[in-house]
Amino acid sequence: MVHHDLSEKLIKWRRDFHQYPETGFLEIRTASIVASILDQLGFELEMGKDVMSPEHCMGKPNDMVTRQHLEWALENGANKDYTAYFSEGYTGIVATLDTNKNGPTIAYRFDMDALDIHESDSTDHFPFKEGFRSTLENKMHACGHDAHTSIGLGLASLIAENKDNLCGKIKLIFQPAEEGTRGAKSMVEANVVSDVDYFIASHVGIGVSQGHVVAANNGYLATSKMDISFKGFASHAGGDPEKGKNALLAAATATLNMSAISRHSQGSTRINIGELHAGRGRNIIPDNAALKVETRGATSEINDYVKKQVESIVDGAATMYNVDYTIDLVGEGKSCTSSRELASIIHECAQDSDAIINSVLESNESTGSEDATFFMEKVQKNGGLATYCIFGTDLAAGHHNEQFDINEETLSQALEILYDSCIRLCNVNTSK
Amino acid sequence: MVHHDLSEKLIKWRRDFHQYPETGFLEIRTASIVASILDQLGFELEMGKDVMSPEHCMGKPNDMVTRQHLEWALENGANKDYTAYFSEGYTGIVATLDTNKNGPTIAYRFDMDALDIHESDSTDHFPFKEGFRSTLENKMHACGHDAHTSIGLGLASLIAENKDNLCGKIKLIFQPAEEGTRGAKSMVEANVVSDVDYFIASHVGIGVSQGHVVAANNGYLATSKMDISFKGFASHAGGDPEKGKNALLAAATATLNMSAISRHSQGSTRINIGELHAGRGRNIIPDNAALKVETRGATSEINDYVKKQVESIVDGAATMYNVDYTIDLVGEGKSCTSSRELASIIHECAQDSDAIINSVLESNESTGSEDATFFMEKVQKNGGLATYCIFGTDLAAGHHNEQFDINEETLSQALEILYDSCIRLCNVNTSK
Amino acid sequence: MVHHDLSEKLIKWRRDFHQYPETGFLEIRTASIVASILDQLGFELEMGKDVMSPEHCMGKPNDMVTRQHLEWALENGANKDYTAYFSEGYTGIVATLDTNKNGPTIAYRFDMDALDIHESDSTDHFPFKEGFRSTLENKMHACGHDAHTSIGLGLASLIAENKDNLCGKIKLIFQPAEEGTRGAKSMVEANVVSDVDYFIASHVGIGVSQGHVVAANNGYLATSKMDISFKGFASHAGGDPEKGKNALLAAATATLNMSAISRHSQGSTRINIGELHAGRGRNIIPDNAALKVETRGATSEINDYVKKQVESIVDGAATMYNVDYTIDLVGEGKSCTSSRELASIIHECAQDSDAIINSVLESNESTGSEDATFFMEKVQKNGGLATYCIFGTDLAAGHHNEQFDINEETLSQALEILYDSCIRLCNVNTSK
Amino acid sequence: MVHHDLSEKLIKWRRDFHQYPETGFLEIRTASIVASILDQLGFELEMGKDVMSPEHCMGKPNDMVTRQHLEWALENGANKDYTAYFSEGYTGIVATLDTNKNGPTIAYRFDMDALDIHESDSTDHFPFKEGFRSTLENKMHACGHDAHTSIGLGLASLIAENKDNLCGKIKLIFQPAEEGTRGAKSMVEANVVSDVDYFIASHVGIGVSQGHVVAANNGYLATSKMDISFKGFASHAGGDPEKGKNALLAAATATLNMSAISRHSQGSTRINIGELHAGRGRNIIPDNAALKVETRGATSEINDYVKKQVESIVDGAATMYNVDYTIDLVGEGKSCTSSRELASIIHECAQDSDAIINSVLESNESTGSEDATFFMEKVQKNGGLATYCIFGTDLAAGHHNEQFDINEETLSQALEILYDSCIRLCNVNTSK
Repeated sequence: MVHHDLSEKLIKWRRDFHQYPETGFLEIRTASIVASILDQLGFELEMGKDVMSPEHCMGKPNDMVTRQHLEWALENGANKDYTAYFSEGYTGIVATLDTNKNGPTIAYRFDMDALDIHESDSTDHFPFKEGFRSTLENKMHACGHDAHTSIGLGLASLIAENKDNLCGKIKLIFQPAEEGTRGAKSMVEANVVSDVDYFIASHVGIGVSQGHVVAANNGYLATSKMDISFKGFASHAGGDPEKGKNALLAAATATLNMSAISRHSQGSTRINIGELHAGRGRNIIPDNAALKVETRGATSEINDYVKKQVESIVDGAATMYNVDYTIDLVGEGKSCTSSRELASIIHECAQDSDAIINSVLESNESTGSEDATFFMEKVQKNGGLATYCIFGTDLAAGHHNEQFDINEETLSQALEILYDSCIRLCNVNTSK
Repeated sequence: MVHHDLSEKLIKWRRDFHQYPETGFLEIRTASIVASILDQLGFELEMGKDVMSPEHCMGKPNDMVTRQHLEWALENGANKDYTAYFSEGYTGIVATLDTNKNGPTIAYRFDMDALDIHESDSTDHFPFKEGFRSTLENKMHACGHDAHTSIGLGLASLIAENKDNLCGKIKLIFQPAEEGTRGAKSMVEANVVSDVDYFIASHVGIGVSQGHVVAANNGYLATSKMDISFKGFASHAGGDPEKGKNALLAAATATLNMSAISRHSQGSTRINIGELHAGRGRNIIPDNAALKVETRGATSEINDYVKKQVESIVDGAATMYNVDYTIDLVGEGKSCTSSRELASIIHECAQDSDAIINSVLESNESTGSEDATFFMEKVQKNGGLATYCIFGTDLAAGHHNEQFDINEETLSQALEILYDSCIRLCNVNTSK
Repeated sequence: MVHHDLSEKLIKWRRDFHQYPETGFLEIRTASIVASILDQLGFELEMGKDVMSPEHCMGKPNDMVTRQHLEWALENGANKDYTAYFSEGYTGIVATLDTNKNGPTIAYRFDMDALDIHESDSTDHFPFKEGFRSTLENKMHACGHDAHTSIGLGLASLIAENKDNLCGKIKLIFQPAEEGTRGAKSMVEANVVSDVDYFIASHVGIGVSQGHVVAANNGYLATSKMDISFKGFASHAGGDPEKGKNALLAAATATLNMSAISRHSQGSTRINIGELHAGRGRNIIPDNAALKVETRGATSEINDYVKKQVESIVDGAATMYNVDYTIDLVGEGKSCTSSRELASIIHECAQDSDAIINSVLESNESTGSEDATFFMEKVQKNGGLATYCIFGTDLAAGHHNEQFDINEETLSQALEILYDSCIRLCNVNTSK
Repeated sequence: MVHHDLSEKLIKWRRDFHQYPETGFLEIRTASIVASILDQLGFELEMGKDVMSPEHCMGKPNDMVTRQHLEWALENGANKDYTAYFSEGYTGIVATLDTNKNGPTIAYRFDMDALDIHESDSTDHFPFKEGFRSTLENKMHACGHDAHTSIGLGLASLIAENKDNLCGKIKLIFQPAEEGTRGAKSMVEANVVSDVDYFIASHVGIGVSQGHVVAANNGYLATSKMDISFKGFASHAGGDPEKGKNALLAAATATLNMSAISRHSQGSTRINIGELHAGRGRNIIPDNAALKVETRGATSEINDYVKKQVESIVDGAATMYNVDYTIDLVGEGKSCTSSRELASIIHECAQDSDAIINSVLESNESTGSEDATFFMEKVQKNGGLATYCIFGTDLAAGHHNEQFDINEETLSQALEILYDSCIRLCNVNTSK
């Protein structure tokens, strides 16, 4: 049972993060606050580049953007005792509590980043009405990661309070840049889950109703996010059209042909060219084109198939128009198969919770992509168990919508189940 | 011969306009200064909507942009006695001098607008070295219209000084928004050349060397400038791809198919999709796309053929993807056939000038497009004569280049020929 | 148990049909022989247009082809007492045996048509070695419908022999033109299953091993087969390119854009432009183009989504190039959900058969498309039960391969199960 | 003046060739008859591979087609004394008459091949009415090469009769396979014009009226004819779509992008994909595609520009879909600039002819492509003079139309001018 004080804190934390949303690799204020609380609770902290491999950070903003955001964070409530760890945008935290008793290493992962969305100021939008709407233009916690971070702090609190009932080691992973599936890989590559026996990631909402739980959500599609650019040669469209090397035509034909990549008999695929920007004037043969592309596949193999076709098509389109190109991988996620044994434990915790109406062991509904799958794959490859669970909540509007909001009762409900799972995993292992 | 004082003034005017470049339909400062000088010289002025048909202005900036620019003009040297005439962005002027003697109506046209180009601050760039570089970011007289306006004022000066030697009526037309071929049509539709017997347009440079003249430049291609937009429906690319209506795919297939419009057996054509911007995020089916397109043709008929294909293709692409579309005509130019009889007079003036090394009667080199052709077509349809002449100049760099600059000696050379043509046209007619 | 004489007959029949393969709506020889045998066995026969709605026959050959084939059939062993019923190419047969006892109406469907494939004459190809290879160029039973027809005649024999053990009515449906999913709809529209309580379709092979059975194969994708043509206007590519209306460019852009139809979140889709033929000479703007297209979807609704996009895209492509078009629907199949209750009975029959190693109740493997689904949908809509079962067999090569061949032991195995199902369905109902 | 007997012969020859039309590299009957007549007239003959470089024959039919046609020729009036020279399809002839007097080497070129067109049997079609319609299905002299061959024989006759009035050497070149611009290059490569001082090619019709002559027709566009094929990998479109390598999609995207090759500022271009055939069945991923493509350009350089783009685009399209490709050059023509000095002589001959109403020295009207340009280029490169002239004629219908027919009076008119040019060229040189 989550006691009243902690319930209040969960809401307070969540609303604070909600007001100061920070997008991927810029969670400086958030991380500094998270770190200070975890430190106070007695966790051992590893931060920044110690828990993130710089070369595996995908789609990270450039230094100027990061520095500007750092200034903003310092002016807007960041805890200055900790900002130094995160000032370059490596905003990950791994907080470990070692019980010094034999037992498993159990990890929980929470994501912290917000989205480039302008939050609604409609009077019936709860965060606006209650005065905790985003203070920033075009930045919003519209996916619930503010809740996740808050739940993570709640879990840290309960673990610290109940340290004596636990065994083994407990690791709380606070991850940057889940949006765009950009941050997890760098933490995996920094070995933060290499010693983990049990790994649990979770999300609020995603189509699951208030009071319902899914113990293993396996519908995530593997995905690759690519920034593609073509570089040609400009010339006057009236006077010298034949001298141009047309990057826009290369991009247009790549767009059409990427969209025409064959379906795969072994499972579903997706391809989207989400943005295309090209050209520098009506009367100039366009010499530049930039595309934002994403592929998905029911399995990592199927996604690789689509990605490989993208590479051939882009190469061919560049050959056609004698232009240069680059493909930058700016995000990646794996497909997901939760460990049934671990999911069963979450399922039991949920079934035993008074606040939970119903729990489902497994769902295969396709619900986008997630980079927690990198952690899961790593843990499972090492012989550990992993699952991804969903805590249902009433949504005011869909994820990534400007009116998105959750029911804050979910905070305590999720915390209770996660804490219970921690207790049970200790017992499972102790009783072995 | 252009006297020394006037030569000095030509340079002073040109450098002033060069420092304060104003793009199409925003030539408020320029027009206010031009108007004040012409007024002083005794010309009868018609301005703004009196000489421009609002519904035929193409690609005119919106009201907010115009208002902001008006403020800038007022703070940067506009003549406040005249800005009221131009405050809504109708910046055309027709200055008439009636000799009250029998004779023809002779019109000269000068264009006043600048380009969205950032002027070089290289130390070997003459305007920078001499301290008259553009005072504005991303605005530059990089095509020589500053010179044209200056020559126009010079011509007004000589005409006013020599009024007694002239006959008939002389009209000086100062046109906005030649770039993008947007402004002339609105002046023609306001009937400013409906009474004109002789019409002379001119340009400096365009590949003709210092001291050389082309009396009739007939290579201009007819052109249409179009802003095309597609409006679809956004949906999540992973979760609901089939619910999207993909405006980017419509735009990409329109782009390819427009580029594939068949050549025409009767003369050359051009098609360019100069810019394409589409989409609002990597993982969202794009619901918007905007294209900047231009067509050209050796004759107005051939250009119409290309434009009609563009319309069919855009319509078809929208049908394919079940999206809406708009095509806005934001610029237009006609093809050009100068009147040989009038060109011969310019040719003679040039041959008789000491400063001119060589004059060519006619050139058919393709040199882009021009909307002076609207005036020419109108005058010729009414039985008048029209020509388009070029005054060669040393160019520091090509037109529309950030290092573009002319040899200022061309100012006096051009003025001399234009003034001489005015004298001869009076004589031709008097002697008839 | 299938007695020895009948086993021999099954093989004899199958090899005869194999030697004289007839493609869709041309099964005149086959149908005449089937009809004569059924007639002899005492079944009541309905044939030709009585069991096929002409306007719902898709992709039927033209009259000339049909007449020529009729002549061939008459010269190659057709039973002339029955050819009159089938001479126009309506080659369906419904054979009914009414036990005159209360009981259900049970229908079994068998397809009779062959493929446009040239059968192997390799010495290790069993039909060649045993002397029953196709007697025709480019025609071959390469899918096993010869076996199906033979099993159907075997079932008729057992039913006739054991009439007294049965109740209700038994209908044997011999369907033309299953290849291309063209024939079933016309029989459904002629109401041949409107009174049916139980409907069983079956196939040999399809990836199921010898001795194995699938009682309900639900993986069939809904499908539409379309012949699309564009009609433009020819002109000389050198002399008058602008006068052409380019049907090939319309077809090429339709091809690309059809291939780019978005995936569907609710299930798998397929799109294939299998053939494109266009143009009449290198130097002529192509005025004709013909495409063979097929769509598929996990459900009939999803297939309809794809088909609707095809229609928009073809319409848009024609608009782009100002050409005319036609879309002819030449084949169609529905998705499939077998009735579990009926499948269970087949499952039991298979499990009880000594010759069967293993039976699977249900499979969802995607295995192409089938138009038996039209019968199934109709029966199920009327409250009846339907299933589609597979009888495994050793395949010499895959379906539609020139070396395709089955293990003839499957003939008796399949017959035994189908006959047993008939017995059980009588008992099920009697015992009710 | 052409005497009556020869006029009659011209018509007789022309009608004979008209009745037995032979397409490129198959002019066996025609060449055997031409050779026998030239031999009789005393010309020295070089034939077959002696005047044609096999590796430079483009788009030559295969051996089987050639052998079958040889049989037909032997049965249809070929002169068996000469067929051996042409039996492999190298059907060119160079007939030389050496006057053994000092003087220039003068060459005249005549083409002999027919088209794959089915001749009209309308009662108002003159060849049908007069009984000399083509005896072959789908073969027709619909471009006037029957007339050209006849004029060539007439010229041979006059030269032989008047040998004593001539000087130098006269070469009559009878060329195969002008249609598709396939045959000339192989004769040039065999050096048949390496010693030529004056070269004259000619054509009847082409938009010039009866009694009119063009002495230098310079409008021919350089051209390349290419057969392009893509080879992919087939797979089942329902079962294994991802295993296919789609040659049709490669061809479709190549088609669109080739059509989108940029215009050239220096002169007109053409691109046509005249035919596309791909695929082997509706439900199979297409593994083959064949395209017939032609490019043209106002100059050989401009055509090379277009051809190079074609090569890049085909390469890129193959890369996109991971398929193989081949590009076979099956025809080629150069652009054309007649030598004014030589054209003036033809012009004078025409002006002096009583039968000619009007002669034009030069025309630049675009009239397709011609491979006589290979001879012209070679002669001019060696310092010789060359021209291409047109003899006007009344056309019953346009070239390449099934109702095409000429006015036979043109035969004598053309012959007179050509013979006169020969006389004058001797005199020009003698008088030097």
